Amino acid sequence: MDELRVIEIKKSVFADNEHDADLLRGELHQQGVFLLNLMSAPGSGKTTTLIQTITRLKDKLRIGVMEADIDSDVDARKMREATGVESIQLHTGGMCHLDAEMTRQGLAALDLAATDLVILENVGNLVCPAEFDTGAVRNAMILSVPEGDDKPLKYPLMFSVCDVVLINKTDVMPYFDFDLEKCTEYIRMRNPKAQVIPICAKTGEGIDTFVDWIIAEVAGWKNDN
Amino acid sequence: MDELRVIEIKKSVFADNEHDADLLRGELHQQGVFLLNLMSAPGSGKTTTLIQTITRLKDKLRIGVMEADIDSDVDARKMREATGVESIQLHTGGMCHLDAEMTRQGLAALDLAATDLVILENVGNLVCPAEFDTGAVRNAMILSVPEGDDKPLKYPLMFSVCDVVLINKTDVMPYFDFDLEKCTEYIRMRNPKAQVIPICAKTGEGIDTFVDWIIAEVAGWKNDN
Repeated sequence: MDELRVIEIKKSVFADNEHDADLLRGELHQQGVFLLNLMSAPGSGKTTTLIQTITRLKDKLRIGVMEADIDSDVDARKMREATGVESIQLHTGGMCHLDAEMTRQGLAALDLAATDLVILENVGNLVCPAEFDTGAVRNAMILSVPEGDDKPLKYPLMFSVCDVVLINKTDVMPYFDFDLEKCTEYIRMRNPKAQVIPICAKTGEGIDTFVDWIIAEVAGWKNDN
Repeated sequence: MDELRVIEIKKSVFADNEHDADLLRGELHQQGVFLLNLMSAPGSGKTTTLIQTITRLKDKLRIGVMEADIDSDVDARKMREATGVESIQLHTGGMCHLDAEMTRQGLAALDLAATDLVILENVGNLVCPAEFDTGAVRNAMILSVPEGDDKPLKYPLMFSVCDVVLINKTDVMPYFDFDLEKCTEYIRMRNPKAQVIPICAKTGEGIDTFVDWIIAEVAGWKNDN
């Protein structure tokens, strides 16, 4: 396997990120590339969830992964070893989020002509990434059981911008005070349309439902003019 | 009990936050008020840890608490009910961190003449709060076991600015792949002087060690001219 690619992305110079994100979305649509932005707090299981998801999805769609991180390249390395799909590491140089221009710098390093789906693993942070449109077609987020069921009350914007919320680490539910029904209610307060999918990335439980959701979203978007 | 105070803090107008933080630290030293800044990712147990800590500490020091949150007032309410100490809620209005001026706005709402120790519970975020000096004398952070032992590799700045790292939720260690020794080694790579204290905020284990650390730090600082 060739050397792992690490892209040092630069701070965006575009003042109007929303406009730039719309442009990027349009360009990707023309190229037939669906961009999915995955967000969460640190340590909620983004990489493990993606490995489980991509393992089930890679025979159906041609996938590329961008792993954003402040410094390390642990995730891109792990992703490539576990799934074999094209994975690049984006170094944000201390930045707490990605915007559309930074995402574009990462996309330029992927072979988009041979890709149907790019998954962006955003910086682990429930605040800033929610404020910056990356140009993704859909936003997904993970809330893990140990973080607590009150997070939609405390990080409202993150839950309002997401199309799907994965509730991860359901295997440790017995050891934490986590009320799934109450949590779903809080999420729906922020975002009545959000899909809520309980998963356990460690065992693979619930991942098929997320995979089906991605396949349906990609198909719907391809048919959408 | 009187009504819960919620302070809507404004974005700072000071360009030079480091200078402002030094000023604030000097003012607080003159007033004999020790400011401790507590940071962590969302859901790692800041509020529960503080409740356990303050319950043990409130007969030794006069304590005030500032709970920073984007929107809710869950934490200040919980803190006041559980400990009886003066607690105010700071609303950051979407901001991902606190700087010295924002901290000052919160301090103005506390009775500093009757306070030895103010604890600031920062916004749940491992990235941005590390970049902004709040004017605190010491920085503490919590890393919880479910987040994983690799976090010092991924969020280097947070670990380098902290004087003490509490490793919380040690009770669920058997259910997660968390290597305490490896984690401590990663923390020390970032910050050779950091104290590492394993705790379980749920059961109270290890909290006495943190309380002793605070008492020693406050005493050392009071004697420091």
